[in-house]
Amino acid sequence: MPIPAPELYPPFNIIRLSHVDFGVTDLAASKAFYVDTLGLQITDEDADTVYLRALEERGHHCMVLRKSETPHVKALSFKVFDEAQLDKAHDWFKGRGHRVEWVERPYQGRTLATHDHLGLPIEFYFKMERLEPIHQKYALYKGVKPLRIDHFNCFVPDVDAAVGFYNEIGFRVTEYTEDEDSKRLWAAWTHRKGGVHDIAFTNGLGPRLHHTAFWVPTPLNIIDLCDLMATTGYVSNLERGPGRHGISNAFFLYILDPDGHRIEIYCSDYQTVDPDLEAIKWDLKDPQRQTLWGAPAPRSWFEHGSVFTGVEPRPSSLGASPIIAP
Amino acid sequence: MPIPAPELYPPFNIIRLSHVDFGVTDLAASKAFYVDTLGLQITDEDADTVYLRALEERGHHCMVLRKSETPHVKALSFKVFDEAQLDKAHDWFKGRGHRVEWVERPYQGRTLATHDHLGLPIEFYFKMERLEPIHQKYALYKGVKPLRIDHFNCFVPDVDAAVGFYNEIGFRVTEYTEDEDSKRLWAAWTHRKGGVHDIAFTNGLGPRLHHTAFWVPTPLNIIDLCDLMATTGYVSNLERGPGRHGISNAFFLYILDPDGHRIEIYCSDYQTVDPDLEAIKWDLKDPQRQTLWGAPAPRSWFEHGSVFTGVEPRPSSLGASPIIAP
Amino acid sequence: MPIPAPELYPPFNIIRLSHVDFGVTDLAASKAFYVDTLGLQITDEDADTVYLRALEERGHHCMVLRKSETPHVKALSFKVFDEAQLDKAHDWFKGRGHRVEWVERPYQGRTLATHDHLGLPIEFYFKMERLEPIHQKYALYKGVKPLRIDHFNCFVPDVDAAVGFYNEIGFRVTEYTEDEDSKRLWAAWTHRKGGVHDIAFTNGLGPRLHHTAFWVPTPLNIIDLCDLMATTGYVSNLERGPGRHGISNAFFLYILDPDGHRIEIYCSDYQTVDPDLEAIKWDLKDPQRQTLWGAPAPRSWFEHGSVFTGVEPRPSSLGASPIIAP
Amino acid sequence: MPIPAPELYPPFNIIRLSHVDFGVTDLAASKAFYVDTLGLQITDEDADTVYLRALEERGHHCMVLRKSETPHVKALSFKVFDEAQLDKAHDWFKGRGHRVEWVERPYQGRTLATHDHLGLPIEFYFKMERLEPIHQKYALYKGVKPLRIDHFNCFVPDVDAAVGFYNEIGFRVTEYTEDEDSKRLWAAWTHRKGGVHDIAFTNGLGPRLHHTAFWVPTPLNIIDLCDLMATTGYVSNLERGPGRHGISNAFFLYILDPDGHRIEIYCSDYQTVDPDLEAIKWDLKDPQRQTLWGAPAPRSWFEHGSVFTGVEPRPSSLGASPIIAP
Repeated sequence: MPIPAPELYPPFNIIRLSHVDFGVTDLAASKAFYVDTLGLQITDEDADTVYLRALEERGHHCMVLRKSETPHVKALSFKVFDEAQLDKAHDWFKGRGHRVEWVERPYQGRTLATHDHLGLPIEFYFKMERLEPIHQKYALYKGVKPLRIDHFNCFVPDVDAAVGFYNEIGFRVTEYTEDEDSKRLWAAWTHRKGGVHDIAFTNGLGPRLHHTAFWVPTPLNIIDLCDLMATTGYVSNLERGPGRHGISNAFFLYILDPDGHRIEIYCSDYQTVDPDLEAIKWDLKDPQRQTLWGAPAPRSWFEHGSVFTGVEPRPSSLGASPIIAP
Repeated sequence: MPIPAPELYPPFNIIRLSHVDFGVTDLAASKAFYVDTLGLQITDEDADTVYLRALEERGHHCMVLRKSETPHVKALSFKVFDEAQLDKAHDWFKGRGHRVEWVERPYQGRTLATHDHLGLPIEFYFKMERLEPIHQKYALYKGVKPLRIDHFNCFVPDVDAAVGFYNEIGFRVTEYTEDEDSKRLWAAWTHRKGGVHDIAFTNGLGPRLHHTAFWVPTPLNIIDLCDLMATTGYVSNLERGPGRHGISNAFFLYILDPDGHRIEIYCSDYQTVDPDLEAIKWDLKDPQRQTLWGAPAPRSWFEHGSVFTGVEPRPSSLGASPIIAP
Repeated sequence: MPIPAPELYPPFNIIRLSHVDFGVTDLAASKAFYVDTLGLQITDEDADTVYLRALEERGHHCMVLRKSETPHVKALSFKVFDEAQLDKAHDWFKGRGHRVEWVERPYQGRTLATHDHLGLPIEFYFKMERLEPIHQKYALYKGVKPLRIDHFNCFVPDVDAAVGFYNEIGFRVTEYTEDEDSKRLWAAWTHRKGGVHDIAFTNGLGPRLHHTAFWVPTPLNIIDLCDLMATTGYVSNLERGPGRHGISNAFFLYILDPDGHRIEIYCSDYQTVDPDLEAIKWDLKDPQRQTLWGAPAPRSWFEHGSVFTGVEPRPSSLGASPIIAP
Repeated sequence: MPIPAPELYPPFNIIRLSHVDFGVTDLAASKAFYVDTLGLQITDEDADTVYLRALEERGHHCMVLRKSETPHVKALSFKVFDEAQLDKAHDWFKGRGHRVEWVERPYQGRTLATHDHLGLPIEFYFKMERLEPIHQKYALYKGVKPLRIDHFNCFVPDVDAAVGFYNEIGFRVTEYTEDEDSKRLWAAWTHRKGGVHDIAFTNGLGPRLHHTAFWVPTPLNIIDLCDLMATTGYVSNLERGPGRHGISNAFFLYILDPDGHRIEIYCSDYQTVDPDLEAIKWDLKDPQRQTLWGAPAPRSWFEHGSVFTGVEPRPSSLGASPIIAP
C-alpha cells in the first residue's frame, strides 16, 4: 500500500508529543532510575506521584511516575497550538464517535481525554505551567544529560490502519518499512514537530507502548550512560545498543526501567519541516534499517512492551515477525 | 520596548530559511573553502556558478556561489508551505507597497522576489528540485560534516523595527538583548522552523549579512575543522571560537570565506516549537550572553559584514557598540 | 597459579611492540581496507608490498602488507632500546636454545629473528628509518584517524606458560582472567610501553594472532568508522562492538580485514608505568570483564584467528571455552 | 644551542611525576574547586590538609592541599623505579653538592627531599600507599573526569640551563622553542613516562610553577568543564582556551584555582617512548606553536605563576617575552 498523502491542512494543529504517564510499582526504584541515573529533574512530587522534566524543557513535565499496583501506561499526551485548536480537536474526535472527556490534570489547562482508532488513550492540552529555564544550569547536568522528550513508539496490530488514522490528524510519515510480499506496512515513523517522529508504530501485539525516547546532546553521553549503568547495578537493564539506526539515522540506546518500561536514549536524527519531504522506504528484509552496523536486536526488543490501562492488546494482522525468526 | 507578541496566525506560512546566494570573486578559491574544507556537496556547477547542499538536505541547494566582480549577497531565500502560501505572500507584500516580482530561479518553482522593510532582498518559493538522500552515504562526509543550513544573521540599523516587521510575517523571537538604559533592542533571534533562529538581527550598520550558519553533528566536528583549517592555510580565516554562546546555548565557531563572507558552524541549540515559548532576555552588559565562557569576541566580529547587492547600509540608530569600546 | 612477579631488571630492554607483517591475498582489497577505510598512510609500496604507518608515528611502518597465496602472519616485531640491547637479546635467546638469526629488513637496522617458547616468530630491531612528523597534517586524517599501533593479542594453548615466558623478557601483567576452579590463567595482558598491553594472550588453539590493535583519538572516531564501513560494503566486516571492555576499560571495535585478519580499534586505556602496579584479576565467570555493558561477543571472536607462517597451532590445554558454550 | 643528547642511561631511574603540594589560603574554597568542580577524589583529609587522587590513579594522591597563610608550592614530587634507585638519586644529588634530606611524608615510603640546579624543591620516593582501583566506578565521575596528573610546567630564568640539568637525570626533550636570533631556548618539554612531558620549562621570572596538568578522556569533557565553571561562579577562573597547542598537539584549557594556582586540563598528546624520538623544534616567531588555531594567549598566561616556598625567583636571562609585547 502506498503511503497516504499527509494532510497538509489537518483538522487541528498538534504541536508535539508532550508527556507520558507511567504506573510504576516502586516509586523509589523509579526515581533512582530516572533521576539519579538518567538525570531527569524532579519538578514536583508527593508520596504517590513524581513529575519530571528534561533539561531544556520549560513545560512543567514530560513524564509522570505514579505509584501503582502494576506497571502500565495511563496515556500519551500531546500539546496543541492554542485553545481554539483544543476545541477543534474535541469536535473532531466527537464527530468521529470517539469517547471525549474534559479532564483535570495538575499543571495543565483544559485537557481533552480521548483515544485513537484502537482505543489507545491520548490526551490533548494547550497550556502547561511554564518553569524557569535550567538549560544553562550545568551543575544540574547528570547521567545522560537528557534534553527533551523526543518521541513515542507503539506496537499496533495494523500499521496501515494506524498511519491512516494519525495522518488524518496531521502526523506525516518520514520513514517506513514495507513487507515487499504483502505490500503492507511493517512499521512507520510520523512527526509533527519537525524531527523524524513524535510517534512511531511497529507491527505486533497492540496497542502497547514500545518505548519513550529522550534526546541527548551527543553519542558520548550515551556511552557515559552505558558506563554508569553497567557499574551501578543496571547492567541487565541495558537491552540494546548503542548503535546507529538505519531508519532515522539516529544514534540509539534502549534501556528498561525497573518496571520494564522501555526508554530510548537518542540523538542525531534530522530536520523534517518540509511538507514535501519524501518518506524513505525500507525493505523488511534489509537488516540495516534497524541497525546500520548490522548487529541484530535481541528478541525481547521485538516482543516486550508496556500495556495501556484498560486496553486489551490484539494480535498483529501480519503474523509473527520474520525478523525474529531463528 | 517589550517584545511584541508573535503573530500566531501569520498572513502566510514560511517553513524555514532555505538558501543564500553569494557573489564571490574567485570561484576556485570558494570551492576549495566550501567543498574541500567545509565539506558541502556540489549539486550542479558551470563556469560561473556552483550549487551546494549539506549532507542531510534533500532540496537542491542551500548555497549558490556566483562568480562576481565584488563580494556581495544577492538575496536571502525562504521556503513557504505550499503554492497557496506563496500567493498569499505576494499579496501581502504588494499590499504593503513592497516591490514584488515573479522571478525564474533554476531548480525552483514559482519564485517571489521582494524585500523587507529595509530593502534587504528576500525571496520566497514553495518547491525546489528534490534530490536523493545522501545523509547515510558516510563516504561523502568530510571537513566539518555540515548537515544543514541553520540560520542567517543580519546587521540592521534598528533592531526593534526589524523584529516588528519579521514578527508580522510569523517569525517568533526566542532570545533578545536589550539595552537596559534605552529599553531598545540590541539584538534578537527569530525563528520559523523550531530552532533558536532562522534569522537574527544585530545592531549595526545595515542591512548587511553578518553570517550564515550551518548545523553540524557535535562540537568535536568543530574542533576537527579548526585543526584542518589551521594546517591547510586557513588559520587567519578562523575569526572567533570555538565557544559556547550564552544566547541560544549553541556551540559555535565563526570563520571567514575567501571573500570575507562570514560562516558560523553551529550545534546544540534547543527546540522552540511551543507557541507559548517565553523569549529569553539578556542584558547588553552581560558578557556571558555572547560567550558563556567569558572570552570576548574580536572587534572584526562586531564590525565586518557582507553587503547586499544594490542596498546601501545605513548607520545604527543606537550608535556604536558599547561592547567593542576599548 | 599466582601471577609471577615481573622481572624488574629484565635481560634486555624492549621498548614497545613495533609492527606486524601480514600475508594478504589481494593487495588492492587490503589497501582499500587499511588505507581508504581505516586511514593508515602508505610510506612505501611496490607491486607486492605495502608499508603503512599511523598518524602520530615517526618510524617508517607499523604494518607490512605482502602479496601472498594464503593469509598468514609472518612475524610480530618489537623495538629494543638501543643496539646494545639487541645484542643482549640475541645472547639471551641463543642461551635458551632458541633459533636466532640476523636478518635484513628494509628500513630497519640490524634485526634479530627468533621465536618465543611456542615457536611464534618474533623479531627485534633497534633502529628504523624515521619519517617527518605528519601528526598535525590534519588534511591526511581520514577514516578512523588511527594514531599508532597499540598491541597484539595471541591465542596460545597455555596462558600460564606464555606469561611465564614473556615475564622473563620484561613484559608485566596488568590484568588477567583466572579460572576459579583450576586456578589456571585464561587470559593475560602484558606491557612494556606503559599502557595496558603490548601483547596479550588468550586461551585457545595457538599460537595464532587474535588481533592487532590501533589507537584512535576518541570513541566518536570509532562510531564514525562504523558508519563508514556500514555504508561502503564492509558491514559484515564489523565483528564486535563498539563497546567498553571491563578488562583495560578501553572502548573497542573489532573488525575483520578482507583476509580475516582481525583489527581492534581502541582508545581510553590507562597508564601503567608504575613498576608496583597491581595486576587486576577477573573471574572467568564475570561477563563484564569482556564487555562492561554486558553484550556477549559473537562465537567467531572466540574461535577465529590468523596463523603464523609455518607454525602449527596446538589445542588449548584448558579445553573449550566455557564462555562460548551455548 | 642544539638540544643536548638525552642521557640514555641516566644515573637513576625516575618513572614519572607524582604529585604537587599546594599551600592554599581557604581549604573549603579549594575543595569546592578541585573536588566539586574538577572532580578529583578525596583520599584523606583533616582540618588542615586534603589529599586528592584522579580517577585512574592507584597511588594515594597526586595533589596535597595544605591550609596556608599565603599561596605557594611546597615541592614537586617524582616517583623512582625502586628503592635502589632512590639511594642512587640520593648519592647523585649529594655528589653534586645539592642539599639532600630524608624526610617523612604520610602515605609514602622513604622520601628524598632535594632541589634542582635553581633551588626548586623536588622530592623523590619509590613507594606510596596503593588504593583500590576506582577507574570503573563511573558513579564517581564528575566535573571534567580527571584521569591522572600529567605534567608540571615551570618558569625558569634560563631554559638552556634547566634542560641541561634535567637531561642529566634522564628527562628527554620532546619539543622545544628556540629564539632564532640568539639560538637560545625559549621553552622545552621533557618527559620520563612516555608522553610529551613530565616537566616543561618556559622562559620567565623563575623558578615559579606555571601550571600543573591533568589528563582527561576527550575534548568534550573540557567543553563540559567550561560550561560548568561558567555557570557556577568560576567564569573568571577560565584563563585560556579551550584550544589546540601546536606544541604537543594537545587539546587544552587553562584555569586558575581560588589562590591563582594554574591548572591545565589536557588530552590528546602522543607516545614518546622511542629513545630515538627526534625533538620537534618550533620558532619563537611562530604563533601556531602556542595555539594551532591562532588565538593568542592572554598576558596573564605569560606572567603569572606560583612561587615555591622559600625560593626567590630570578629574572629571565632572555629579557621580556616578544610574544606579549603589545
